[in-house]
Amino acid sequence: MIEARAVKIAGKGEVDVLSLGTLAVRDPGEGELRVKVAAAGLNRADLLQRRGFYPAPPGVPADVPGLEYSGTVEQVGPGVLGLSVGDAVMGIVSGGAMATHLVTHARETMKVPPGVSLVDAAAIPEVFLTAYDALFVQARLRLGQSVLVHSIGSGIGTAALQLASCAGAHVLGSSRTQDKLERCVRLGLHDGVLVTDKTFAATVAKLTQQRGCDVILDTVGGAYLAENVKALAPLGRLVVIGLMGGAAAELPLGLLLAKRAQVIGTVLRSRPLEEKATLSQQFARDVSPLFESGKLRPVIDAVLPMSEIRAAHERMERNDSFGKLVMAWE
Amino acid sequence: MIEARAVKIAGKGEVDVLSLGTLAVRDPGEGELRVKVAAAGLNRADLLQRRGFYPAPPGVPADVPGLEYSGTVEQVGPGVLGLSVGDAVMGIVSGGAMATHLVTHARETMKVPPGVSLVDAAAIPEVFLTAYDALFVQARLRLGQSVLVHSIGSGIGTAALQLASCAGAHVLGSSRTQDKLERCVRLGLHDGVLVTDKTFAATVAKLTQQRGCDVILDTVGGAYLAENVKALAPLGRLVVIGLMGGAAAELPLGLLLAKRAQVIGTVLRSRPLEEKATLSQQFARDVSPLFESGKLRPVIDAVLPMSEIRAAHERMERNDSFGKLVMAWE
Repeated sequence: MIEARAVKIAGKGEVDVLSLGTLAVRDPGEGELRVKVAAAGLNRADLLQRRGFYPAPPGVPADVPGLEYSGTVEQVGPGVLGLSVGDAVMGIVSGGAMATHLVTHARETMKVPPGVSLVDAAAIPEVFLTAYDALFVQARLRLGQSVLVHSIGSGIGTAALQLASCAGAHVLGSSRTQDKLERCVRLGLHDGVLVTDKTFAATVAKLTQQRGCDVILDTVGGAYLAENVKALAPLGRLVVIGLMGGAAAELPLGLLLAKRAQVIGTVLRSRPLEEKATLSQQFARDVSPLFESGKLRPVIDAVLPMSEIRAAHERMERNDSFGKLVMAWE
Repeated sequence: MIEARAVKIAGKGEVDVLSLGTLAVRDPGEGELRVKVAAAGLNRADLLQRRGFYPAPPGVPADVPGLEYSGTVEQVGPGVLGLSVGDAVMGIVSGGAMATHLVTHARETMKVPPGVSLVDAAAIPEVFLTAYDALFVQARLRLGQSVLVHSIGSGIGTAALQLASCAGAHVLGSSRTQDKLERCVRLGLHDGVLVTDKTFAATVAKLTQQRGCDVILDTVGGAYLAENVKALAPLGRLVVIGLMGGAAAELPLGLLLAKRAQVIGTVLRSRPLEEKATLSQQFARDVSPLFESGKLRPVIDAVLPMSEIRAAHERMERNDSFGKLVMAWE
């Protein structure tokens, strides 16, 4: 047992419920590691958790946010294979990543790809695992198909854009900000879709010769649901991974049937250990080498010291960041 | 070219737009057969087509209904392998089955399973292919999983019930009529769900120890959408194949994400030839032997002469039939 420093959430509310405090971190058990955390990515889920809308699951510190980390292995529990003290690692956790130390299962951990700095690596796990799972495991995106990625300038958007582009897909990206679309062209974006008044299906139709997109990756939910179904190609798959625009909306079932299309809901956080471990191992094997070769890179808006967590939350809420916000321990 | 007798639809409306007339049927081309039709199953799509809501796709006689047939091969086009004049066959077509003769592609045709009469075979293709595709291809139902089949006493319901039961699934079936639920017990139904006031999720929760069903096969659409998502298990798949209860409704996306569930829309009629042929060939190989061994059987409410097509439409609209209505040529 050691005492770690950590970001703490005192109650529910605005950013003033956030402050630095301490957290007791246990020793690693069978198959587990203790990691000395270098940095943790900030996610919208952290903002929801601060407001009380996204409580931590059982077994995770309820008052310490943080769903992803990078750091070095500090202590290795019994039965851990392939990882040693001092190894640079990164990974997703169900909470508690914004602490100087955390305990996680070794099978959920991935080595930091050579060529990526320890701090930058904290921008990889959540968005790249989520986008990889949503695009390729859930939606079965493949070579030559078209994909529409909403909020293309976000952390998840820039990750999905790079992954889909690497896989030989034709990538359309949406944003409400023209500047974000332009910056994404440098990351491989083929067609930008400027969203005005929550509509985009007509633009997608024009860009795809009326066919629509084979896959749509959506973090908006309700406000985009009907437009998303309109923008799908025959046999298209809409993967909804966020609900920033509402948790319910009218589904045009007639159109869904006519297109033989699918709406798939998915989340990472609530999955059981074995599923997260399977995904992490698959990602480490198939995707991590693409960071080493430079085909993928974490897109980082800013690295801030952990003591500026309130400012970081405010920055994400202003919605003008491009890529990931990373919180680092000094 | 021969002149066939056929059911004709004159305009849109009630059953009085239906009558017997004639239809010119061409000779079979490359890879095609001409079939002397013995019988044709009646489907709800025929009723929709009569009302003008479900027009026939291009290449199909617009004014002759009928999506499935049984009969004998009368003439074989060039390049047909494995089928000869006189063979008993059955299959789906995009329209025109309610005629004494039709031309179809040989790869969309299936041999009538030994032990099934030529007339009864007309009750097999549409409902068994649809249920087989929806349950196993689209929803990936497998051994030990639970499935809720709505309108369990319908043609599609009784087909899905038998197929799912054969595959080792736990089958729940819904109906608004207690008598239909009781009759389905003899076909292998494990749990009946009496639908009152369009609600059923609470009953499904009780019957599944609060877990919900892995798969739901739905022909109702809008009116059942929210209840269906409530009745799904984690990672559950809702397959919507009909819209008898409305073509749009509010989708509880938050619940869909929390359950990591899917809504899949699908139809058979509009699929291209190669997909229908693939499905028919797969069905003939994997499912037809189950009719021969007696594990599956077409459930037939009544066999009526083709001249009673108006009465048959009225009977299906009254919604008190159990299983399929089959129209036979005398």
